[in-house]
Amino acid sequence: MHDAVEVILAKRDRAELSDSQIDWVIDAYTRGEVDDAQMSALAMAILLNGMDRREIARWTAAMIASGERMDFSTLSRPTADKHSTGGVGDKITLPLAPLVAACGVAVPQLSGRGLGHTGGTLDKLESIPGWRAALSNDEMFAQLESVGAVICAAGDGLAPADKKLYALRDVTGTVEAIPLIASSIMSKKIAEGTGSLVLDVKVGTGAFMKSVESARELAATMVGLGQDAGVHTVALLTDMSTPLGLTAGNAIEVAESVEVLAGGGPADVVELTLALAREMLAGAGVTDVDPAEVLASGRAMDTWKAMVRAQDGDPDADLPVAHESHVVTAPATGVLTRLDAMAVGMAAWRLGAGRAKAGASVQAGAGVVWHARPGDAVTEGAPLFTLLTDEPDRFERALDSLEGGYDVAAAGTAYTPDPLVIDRIG
Amino acid sequence: MHDAVEVILAKRDRAELSDSQIDWVIDAYTRGEVDDAQMSALAMAILLNGMDRREIARWTAAMIASGERMDFSTLSRPTADKHSTGGVGDKITLPLAPLVAACGVAVPQLSGRGLGHTGGTLDKLESIPGWRAALSNDEMFAQLESVGAVICAAGDGLAPADKKLYALRDVTGTVEAIPLIASSIMSKKIAEGTGSLVLDVKVGTGAFMKSVESARELAATMVGLGQDAGVHTVALLTDMSTPLGLTAGNAIEVAESVEVLAGGGPADVVELTLALAREMLAGAGVTDVDPAEVLASGRAMDTWKAMVRAQDGDPDADLPVAHESHVVTAPATGVLTRLDAMAVGMAAWRLGAGRAKAGASVQAGAGVVWHARPGDAVTEGAPLFTLLTDEPDRFERALDSLEGGYDVAAAGTAYTPDPLVIDRIG
Repeated sequence: MHDAVEVILAKRDRAELSDSQIDWVIDAYTRGEVDDAQMSALAMAILLNGMDRREIARWTAAMIASGERMDFSTLSRPTADKHSTGGVGDKITLPLAPLVAACGVAVPQLSGRGLGHTGGTLDKLESIPGWRAALSNDEMFAQLESVGAVICAAGDGLAPADKKLYALRDVTGTVEAIPLIASSIMSKKIAEGTGSLVLDVKVGTGAFMKSVESARELAATMVGLGQDAGVHTVALLTDMSTPLGLTAGNAIEVAESVEVLAGGGPADVVELTLALAREMLAGAGVTDVDPAEVLASGRAMDTWKAMVRAQDGDPDADLPVAHESHVVTAPATGVLTRLDAMAVGMAAWRLGAGRAKAGASVQAGAGVVWHARPGDAVTEGAPLFTLLTDEPDRFERALDSLEGGYDVAAAGTAYTPDPLVIDRIG
Repeated sequence: MHDAVEVILAKRDRAELSDSQIDWVIDAYTRGEVDDAQMSALAMAILLNGMDRREIARWTAAMIASGERMDFSTLSRPTADKHSTGGVGDKITLPLAPLVAACGVAVPQLSGRGLGHTGGTLDKLESIPGWRAALSNDEMFAQLESVGAVICAAGDGLAPADKKLYALRDVTGTVEAIPLIASSIMSKKIAEGTGSLVLDVKVGTGAFMKSVESARELAATMVGLGQDAGVHTVALLTDMSTPLGLTAGNAIEVAESVEVLAGGGPADVVELTLALAREMLAGAGVTDVDPAEVLASGRAMDTWKAMVRAQDGDPDADLPVAHESHVVTAPATGVLTRLDAMAVGMAAWRLGAGRAKAGASVQAGAGVVWHARPGDAVTEGAPLFTLLTDEPDRFERALDSLEGGYDVAAAGTAYTPDPLVIDRIG
């Protein structure tokens, strides 16, 4: 009825793909009848020639149909989930999931591992002694009922077409296509069965989307896909020119998240956690609970501990510490006026906090701590960064990454921070 | 030094590929370090974003460098070769090679097998009992010295990168890219070591290039590549809206070629054979021999027989005949005003003269004979086509292909033939 070359030629020659062509090509690719070389040619044609809203919606539906679909409608609570397009120091899921659960909304968060300079939520949590990412669907359901929040690995059953296509895009230069990014994220989130969804679309040097325009287009595409599928979906565009908080790594980000749950932590992490919590609660129809109060009450910390324990982790255990550290001092006395998210992300990655290849392991203790944020005063010779790794031969390339990644201006220089939340779509 | 994603991203984002990127990607693909999925994404990016003259020249040189390069400079005669971009009923190589050889210029013609609706020269010659396409380099050299003409299969040693890439493009919708078509043809022809080259670039419904503009662009690209590589190169743009001669198939095209060598044959086949022979002779610096005279003298026929015998074929043996035939009669009395090359080519292919998949076998006797050419008078009920195959269940789909592929107008309707040779570039 269809064949791969016909579908490729259609998109190559700027035609719209029919519903039937899309259904066929996704199914045939999942079964292996369409091979990787054919799908990568099609992905490049989609990247260069685009897809319209109908095509993207059908492509997403076909990827959902390639696997199972979860259903949490029998839970005693409404559900809400959050997805970030990936940033440096983005540990928000860790305090956010227990906070929203403590506010009465269940959070079924299926997460991934990191690739490249942005960290993965599972990699961070796996630095907690004993914690396990793999849960059965029954365990997930039971934990959502008992604890209210679960962060675990997406099973192979959800959108297998997306899993296969994502791995292919990663090695064929076809990642940066809004139709493919949007359908990849949304197929997993819709298949996951959440009732409402908040998207944190990152913008800036450390993000996938470098410009507000492209981030807005991606956000609008995903919000449209969620709404078409009956999932209440909202997107926040948030800044990723500067890394979040004061840490980028694994164990060190867990520690920072626990500080937030304890009522402290960096102001930007707290601000974004609360902003996303409010959206998730509103999306789930809960409007009478103030997440700031719940955070201050310690109830979010209680839920965090229960969530970690339910997955065999010890929330009170000491976290792993890197064997080696290296301090970078401030080059002058004055004001830190810029800290580049990509530079910090690359440094953390090169120190061993991230992986270059899918399937590789990461170091739990590795990463970068910065001791000032843009706008803070710094003193010549005082520590500005602490680099952490188990392998000291990694310091040199990490230092190369940091070079040129920050500016110190004369004391008294005015500094106006950019807003953390840039826009809201939905 | 380079990696596949970097090269793909460069072309995807409309950058020029550097010499070093091109050399690396062709070499790495030949070695298997760059995989098919990566190369097909790159091919699609090249198809959609193009390459400039420097990039195409370097791409061609890299494909030549992937294998061996032949050298006929020690032959006692100059060499000339011809390449056709493929047409229906295009048997010109068969009379042309011995004719040019009989005029004193050696013809080292490395040919291919057909795929799709255009026939392959080797498929046609293999209908001659005993004839073999595979020659060693030494056999080829000896035959060029003794007979003056050789038509044989290109060995695996010439431009192996092109061989691999061509097979990939065929299944990934990336065939129709002028930089890739031009570099594929010219890498083989330059590696083959001919001193001069005439390109027969077909234009029209039955050709790869449907418009004169695209054919001219392809021709100019190839002529530039040949000249840059020191091969005297000229291109003729010739019509392929109407099939050549009166036959499309294998054995039936051999028979028609032998008629031409015997001094008869369809006028258009004779005209194109002579036009290409004159270009080949001029390219090789031979200007004092008239190929029409040599054809009339019977010396080209002598060379043909010697050439067939040198490759173990019997030029006097009966050719295979299809087991079944089906006649299509003219629907009215009048003038045939159109005979569509693609319709005839598809019919011949469906009758078994061509293959749908590389490596499949073809029927020696299958094909289509037409009993009139545009401009000829036809009589209602008299045979217009004879369809030939060993498998009668193929008639129906072949008849479907012919449907709508010809027009008969009222007797006396004026018919002005289009010129066979449309343009000359070089």
